[in-house]
Amino acid sequence: MIEDSHPGLAAVSWRGDWDGSLLLLDQTRLPLEIVQLDCQELAQAREAIVQLRVRGAPAIGIAAAYATLLALRPFAAQQSVDSAVLRSIHTDLEHLGTSRPTAVNLFWALERMRLVIAAAAAATPTVASLGRWMLAEARKIHEEDRQMCHAIGRYGASLIEDGMGLLTHCNTGGLATAEYGTALSAFFTAQDQGKEFQVYVDETRPLLQGARLTAWELMQREVPCTLICDSMAAQVMREGKVQAVFVGADRITARGDTANKIGTYGLAVQAKHHGVPFYVAAPSSTFDLSLEWGSDIPIEQRQEGEITEAFGKRTAPRGVRVYNPAFDVTPAELITALITEKGIVRPVTQSHIRELLAGP
Amino acid sequence: MIEDSHPGLAAVSWRGDWDGSLLLLDQTRLPLEIVQLDCQELAQAREAIVQLRVRGAPAIGIAAAYATLLALRPFAAQQSVDSAVLRSIHTDLEHLGTSRPTAVNLFWALERMRLVIAAAAAATPTVASLGRWMLAEARKIHEEDRQMCHAIGRYGASLIEDGMGLLTHCNTGGLATAEYGTALSAFFTAQDQGKEFQVYVDETRPLLQGARLTAWELMQREVPCTLICDSMAAQVMREGKVQAVFVGADRITARGDTANKIGTYGLAVQAKHHGVPFYVAAPSSTFDLSLEWGSDIPIEQRQEGEITEAFGKRTAPRGVRVYNPAFDVTPAELITALITEKGIVRPVTQSHIRELLAGP
Repeated sequence: MIEDSHPGLAAVSWRGDWDGSLLLLDQTRLPLEIVQLDCQELAQAREAIVQLRVRGAPAIGIAAAYATLLALRPFAAQQSVDSAVLRSIHTDLEHLGTSRPTAVNLFWALERMRLVIAAAAAATPTVASLGRWMLAEARKIHEEDRQMCHAIGRYGASLIEDGMGLLTHCNTGGLATAEYGTALSAFFTAQDQGKEFQVYVDETRPLLQGARLTAWELMQREVPCTLICDSMAAQVMREGKVQAVFVGADRITARGDTANKIGTYGLAVQAKHHGVPFYVAAPSSTFDLSLEWGSDIPIEQRQEGEITEAFGKRTAPRGVRVYNPAFDVTPAELITALITEKGIVRPVTQSHIRELLAGP
Repeated sequence: MIEDSHPGLAAVSWRGDWDGSLLLLDQTRLPLEIVQLDCQELAQAREAIVQLRVRGAPAIGIAAAYATLLALRPFAAQQSVDSAVLRSIHTDLEHLGTSRPTAVNLFWALERMRLVIAAAAAATPTVASLGRWMLAEARKIHEEDRQMCHAIGRYGASLIEDGMGLLTHCNTGGLATAEYGTALSAFFTAQDQGKEFQVYVDETRPLLQGARLTAWELMQREVPCTLICDSMAAQVMREGKVQAVFVGADRITARGDTANKIGTYGLAVQAKHHGVPFYVAAPSSTFDLSLEWGSDIPIEQRQEGEITEAFGKRTAPRGVRVYNPAFDVTPAELITALITEKGIVRPVTQSHIRELLAGP
């Protein structure tokens, strides 16, 4: 489990038996304070998801899976599962499902838990036994994500050589997933293999996930890193300090066009100009084969306050017009390779993607 | 004069006769407050320069020229210039010259004022007459900069057409110069000519001169503008919203390589990728023909706090390593044209630059 390999770094973990509690690293307090929330009631877990104390699609799914156990906990003193217990749990799960309206992993994890609750309720009459089935399923969801991150990491690390300078954008590490993350998993795995390298971290305006989270994660795991503003990446490349760029993905189309945090596309253009390989690391679940072109991906526009007063202080004129796209799309032509848990797609073509996804 | 065309916007102005006072727009209070400092003593003017209340090389030079009058002011009640008056003024000017150690325009303006003081003292015996000579010279320095900015603006505006989307970085407007600025002068002049266009403003991390100053200047003069994070520029270009990029310059080499605010080079790479013209606007005094290649320009490294806690709140882990180059260098090959008060250099070659600078 995560907590064994590096205690205190796990975004999500479960303490104790099925009637234990959900531990969440409060990401809103990072990087200045390391605060672990011990959620003993479902309402606390739900609040943590709503308030982005836990964030990143996989991490939210894992947290939600464990949180279902907190719905059972009020009945821990009761011997047998009756319809009142099941009704209560299902009502709680419905409510939990409304905590982040667009989090696909959240719905998916809750659906898996509903299925196991139904199967367990049919098979066993006791609350304790239902709890153990549920905990086993939540741990399975957690472990599957962990294994997937490690697989991505192994493929990614194969592209990293001693002495390289690497550059990354936003946060794609263990804070958003189980343990190792996606793009950062390549770095952590390469480090485990004894490779020595250096990471440049884009601060990632407007919300500074790079400065607040990625730099923190890399420092916690003692990966040498240097923080830069997003606008400095081209200069760092020009100085010959970067031999590869690794980023994550929010959605990848059938031809390989990739939506990711705003700023990714500009980095890809700069990487191409400097002849630096540009790698996208993401689980195969990130592919959306229903879309062919990146231009089909809708780009979320976010609140202007993220740009005009993101740091507790207004830094732009009142009334200024703001454009704040949350994502951009990098066309497949600018991506050197896609790194997934199933292998590496290189060059990035529709047929290569189809082959990889059809594989085991 | 500036204050006539748009009162309240002038970074620097002089009120009254030679025994009047120096008005400075306090740029540290922008964009949230418009505070005009009325400096009646030299110490106030010096403090304003030290504290960056007035900034931008030309604006500092103009402010320093006027500030020399504040050195004469204590003797306003006195009839004739004696050696005590001249000694006092020269001591004050020495001290003023230490307010910004690297500001070339400051030294240059003070030297011009010293020459006129010497000439006046030799020609006329009265304090009032010395004051009038000095005020005339300071106004001349101011007016020369104003004319130069307008000439740059006229050449720059010739490259702007109705309906264009334009993009700029950092602050190159009237706040840093007399009235119109350099790159922004192209926008203001095009607006005066009745052209309709739209400006995207990079916020310009780390110090946010785009968000704090450029957006404010454009809004004050009612030029339609939209604020973006630096990392969004490539996406805005990809969406077809930008038909030209206009930036300023800190130093330009004999072959046209241009040092400017960090982020400029990355923008130039993105502009080239999207086939968008990339224009650099700067006075001919910005050229340093003693250097041929941009790699010969030393890049100032600045304090890490600008990145880790620029907005009154720490946003990165304590102890994180930071790389904070203040400038980058854009090679001549990425610059479509150089816009100066003497004309436009296009294409940007060493011989074209030499011809332009040799001209009238």
